Amino acid sequence: MSRATPIPDDLPASGAWRPGDPVGARRFLSLAVDRPLLLESGAQLSSIDVAYETWGTLDAAASNAVLVCHALTGDSHAAGRDGWWEGLIGPGRPLDTDRYFVVCSNVLGGCQGTTGPASDDPSTGRPYGSAFPVVTIRDMVRVQASLADSLGVDRWRAVVGGSMGGMQALEWAVTYPDRVGALILASTTAEASAQQIAWSHIGRSAVLTDPEFRGGDYYDAAPGEGPWRGLMVARMCAQVTYRSDEVFAERFHRSVIDRFAFSAAPVFDIENYLDYHGIKLVRRFDANSYLRLNRAMDLHDVGRSRGSRTRALERVRAPVLVSSVRSDGLYPPSQQLALVADFESLGVPVRHVELDSPHGHDAFLIETQLLGPPVAEFLDDPKGAAQ
Amino acid sequence: MSRATPIPDDLPASGAWRPGDPVGARRFLSLAVDRPLLLESGAQLSSIDVAYETWGTLDAAASNAVLVCHALTGDSHAAGRDGWWEGLIGPGRPLDTDRYFVVCSNVLGGCQGTTGPASDDPSTGRPYGSAFPVVTIRDMVRVQASLADSLGVDRWRAVVGGSMGGMQALEWAVTYPDRVGALILASTTAEASAQQIAWSHIGRSAVLTDPEFRGGDYYDAAPGEGPWRGLMVARMCAQVTYRSDEVFAERFHRSVIDRFAFSAAPVFDIENYLDYHGIKLVRRFDANSYLRLNRAMDLHDVGRSRGSRTRALERVRAPVLVSSVRSDGLYPPSQQLALVADFESLGVPVRHVELDSPHGHDAFLIETQLLGPPVAEFLDDPKGAAQ
Repeated sequence: MSRATPIPDDLPASGAWRPGDPVGARRFLSLAVDRPLLLESGAQLSSIDVAYETWGTLDAAASNAVLVCHALTGDSHAAGRDGWWEGLIGPGRPLDTDRYFVVCSNVLGGCQGTTGPASDDPSTGRPYGSAFPVVTIRDMVRVQASLADSLGVDRWRAVVGGSMGGMQALEWAVTYPDRVGALILASTTAEASAQQIAWSHIGRSAVLTDPEFRGGDYYDAAPGEGPWRGLMVARMCAQVTYRSDEVFAERFHRSVIDRFAFSAAPVFDIENYLDYHGIKLVRRFDANSYLRLNRAMDLHDVGRSRGSRTRALERVRAPVLVSSVRSDGLYPPSQQLALVADFESLGVPVRHVELDSPHGHDAFLIETQLLGPPVAEFLDDPKGAAQ
Repeated sequence: MSRATPIPDDLPASGAWRPGDPVGARRFLSLAVDRPLLLESGAQLSSIDVAYETWGTLDAAASNAVLVCHALTGDSHAAGRDGWWEGLIGPGRPLDTDRYFVVCSNVLGGCQGTTGPASDDPSTGRPYGSAFPVVTIRDMVRVQASLADSLGVDRWRAVVGGSMGGMQALEWAVTYPDRVGALILASTTAEASAQQIAWSHIGRSAVLTDPEFRGGDYYDAAPGEGPWRGLMVARMCAQVTYRSDEVFAERFHRSVIDRFAFSAAPVFDIENYLDYHGIKLVRRFDANSYLRLNRAMDLHDVGRSRGSRTRALERVRAPVLVSSVRSDGLYPPSQQLALVADFESLGVPVRHVELDSPHGHDAFLIETQLLGPPVAEFLDDPKGAAQ
């Protein structure tokens, strides 16, 4: 039994990081203004800032760098205290920072330091908001390639990611096959499915129909007056798709918040849990970024404008580790098995592992003790492990 | 390739049926004002109207009546043109109206003729709105029992329902064991799970956070100015849970609305499909009813205040047919199998069938050609079929 989470009336209009906020462990790269990035959509962006973090030391031959790509609401803070993959990255851990130089950057379109809709548009001096263009996974990867250049990394020892991070990792291996030494794809897909697009559309619809979203130009709204309601509903919905019936039954069953009541107000602990997660995201995320990154995932299709999925995947030169979670209903094992089958038929060395976890899609973040051993083994000897 | 569904700007504030609207095949029963219904919550309702439909003829011994209970957004129009179970009910069909007298009533708290939040509160002459009490599945069943009395049906030949309709059917057999000759439970559960409550809470949150919901008192809003956005998002979300990854992949895959565009506006057919279903529900449903009926499903727990689930189920005297759908992620087969195991251990004759359909939860409505044969066979000889 727990207490109901009160919904605060001062939630921020945007939880985006803004210049002047605590920098944390972020470092920044500014991409030169004289080299505007031409996006896949045809739009251009200039003055891109990239927020990133690194752990470990790049060796003299620049041969030990590992790129970690984050998922939808992740950021550059993958390791260290409260890092989203803390259990996987660190000294002596599977991504061993005593051996590897690990890099993680906030994606283009994100809201934790890399240029996104909450960033100032240099042409107006105000946040882009509705003017921020649609970005794709390929656009994110091109920005990461500029970061690799600036770090002196010609070729990653490995590129690693789960969910949207896995989409980026896959695009890395297809776009820059010579720059990827090994590829780790966790709980991801070669192309977004109709059901994944459906969930994405529902989250977007929740935000877009919030009148406080104001078409995307809400950055001057006072606390409590931004599109927090829509973003909260979007996150609550996503949260259910990230977990599983099994784990909710185990954790919450029908337990009630305080005492049983025939009430229209929240009655059950699971309702409280969802409210909590909705509120938590609103404090650290931005509604426009949520829309843009979800759309990037919808548009993810490794075969797009490359002839076919097979044509795209045959460019991959790296051995591949693919991991699934048996209880993942959002990125079901069938999606990863399809990737494995494609790689096998193309003669790309590939190993598949299925994590026996009840935690659904989020297991790739939660179950680092299950994901870690195959990752460590694969990184030691990618070709050998993937035979 | 299809065209994007434009979202109309004149959607009704409520899609509830109101006196003066076309009656269709509805008949009405008014429960006497001198016998107010004491709800399970302790609240009282007087002047309850029940909208119902019947098909076939009650025999002289009143021994051939079958009660059909509807699901969340259903109504009394189960059979005939556009009836929600048209494939199952009719002359020569599994619920054969040449043999059976089939009855279906709109539930208490609904919005298609039976008293609900959109009905006028006799004490004010205006819609109940926010003043409408929380109702439970047991309250719905008690109202149906009054309808049975008025129709001269002491004992139903069978009580049949799917999803929320199955909850009602189960409560019938537990509350009035002597009045139920056979029980058919399709895609339902003995108690709502945490995940089911989670989805329900998300739908509610989408409605409650729509500022046009106005706490539930929106009935005088002009077209386009009611809580249609919130109800639309709630329905879109529910629609995904009602179907399956498999069937969306088959039907939509990644097909696009018109031509491929790097756009923040709807791009994919699946987005259009969800918008279409959201709009369609807004035209025929009421936001307050949506909240109350979802809450009734959350509160469904056959064991509540009966000592235990076993204590409740041991009251059942009717043979039972339980059906599942292999692809149902919302009411997964494990829930129906748990019911079957309970009945078996209590010595209640029970038969279980699993429909091999890709259509998910909605298969109980869609796949009448799969559900029909076991239903017909069971109705012919419930005890024999359930041995």
